[in-house]
Amino acid sequence: MSDGENLASYPTSSRNQVKRRHDRGFYDHETVHRILDASMMCHVSYVIDGQPYCTPTFFWREGTRLYWHGSSASRMLRNQSSGQRVCLTVAHLDSLVLARCGFNHSADYRAVMAFGTAYLVTDVEEKERAVIAMVDRFFPDRTAGLRQSNTQEIKATSFIAMEIEEASAKIRAKGVADDEEDYELPIYAERIPVRTVLGAPEPCSRLLPGVMRPETLNGYSEGRLLEDALRDAYFLQYPTR
Amino acid sequence: MSDGENLASYPTSSRNQVKRRHDRGFYDHETVHRILDASMMCHVSYVIDGQPYCTPTFFWREGTRLYWHGSSASRMLRNQSSGQRVCLTVAHLDSLVLARCGFNHSADYRAVMAFGTAYLVTDVEEKERAVIAMVDRFFPDRTAGLRQSNTQEIKATSFIAMEIEEASAKIRAKGVADDEEDYELPIYAERIPVRTVLGAPEPCSRLLPGVMRPETLNGYSEGRLLEDALRDAYFLQYPTR
Repeated sequence: MSDGENLASYPTSSRNQVKRRHDRGFYDHETVHRILDASMMCHVSYVIDGQPYCTPTFFWREGTRLYWHGSSASRMLRNQSSGQRVCLTVAHLDSLVLARCGFNHSADYRAVMAFGTAYLVTDVEEKERAVIAMVDRFFPDRTAGLRQSNTQEIKATSFIAMEIEEASAKIRAKGVADDEEDYELPIYAERIPVRTVLGAPEPCSRLLPGVMRPETLNGYSEGRLLEDALRDAYFLQYPTR
Repeated sequence: MSDGENLASYPTSSRNQVKRRHDRGFYDHETVHRILDASMMCHVSYVIDGQPYCTPTFFWREGTRLYWHGSSASRMLRNQSSGQRVCLTVAHLDSLVLARCGFNHSADYRAVMAFGTAYLVTDVEEKERAVIAMVDRFFPDRTAGLRQSNTQEIKATSFIAMEIEEASAKIRAKGVADDEEDYELPIYAERIPVRTVLGAPEPCSRLLPGVMRPETLNGYSEGRLLEDALRDAYFLQYPTR
């Protein structure tokens, strides 16, 4: 990723242009990547024989490329290996918004839709890097201390990747927004924040004596926002991306 | 919904049969609906000219029918009004699972994929019910106390619905699950719970004097799981569904 990332934007087309509420649309790499890197889970849409599928899965970003995890047995993978068009979406729900009329009930959220052509990762070197990244992107440097993957496991693991061709971010972050005349009404309105947080880590009950939690997991502490832990981990592992 | 709901299941086909990890698949109404009713947000996949789109939106269930909210200006709606096939997915992330090898790193989750043919809600009576349900499903009896929707607002609001033709739930809830021989290794493993919780409600700064929070919102209290608040609200509003 070049130094110019903060200035770069994804191109817009009829595919990714935010149609409704133009003021909520963003296309710059910084905004798009920040929303992506705050999540472990995405939803991937793909088409088989005209039938759309929407599959939740785990993913990560490398520059302007997205990787996600599949199984060689999965429907998705069998059909995406030859370069299928997909849409990968990440959404964060930030609040419920209760307004003074039904029409203005809403929610604060941040979402990204990314479009591209998916390919099965078959290059040996790229796959070896993906096997490590799918762990270390979330838990920096963790792979080095694990029982190493064997050939059978690597064979049974499949990764799909796509270069982001177009992407858009859509953000609503304004809480209650009523029609001006409705503020004169004796009706209760509020914003209810929604946060996705980490609970207290639960060590495996079968740990060997003396095996301690590594300091590299300190970012995953009770009460922390999941997205903060994920973003910190990302920048520890990929400081230049 | 009949009294036999708990015994009913959605039919299976190549479309919704859980292909990978059969032990994680469920098709009964009770399991599928419980996962759906715990969420306000879903992701809907649809196809335009062979291009898949994955759109996050707000939805609710009525029996075996799903409704979601759109705008008459939205891409999705323009193309789904004539009965387009869609896949609507809800996923809850319950934990991050750190195992003793990369291959067994995982997550606990609950997800539903629901398949059907979407239609634009044009029937006047069905649309009037939807205008109320899109608020009251989440906030029981709230519409009665709001400034009522005007004709222009109802016209500008669009709903899409689909009868669930097939659906599957996929659940992983076992935390760390390593290969038996790996438990002998001096490697740290843990499960990190993930919870989506409500923050302290933030009353609108422009409330008129004396306007209090209605008791019907008591379920939305600081620190509560969003999914518990949503499920309770659902059963208050639809006790027989």
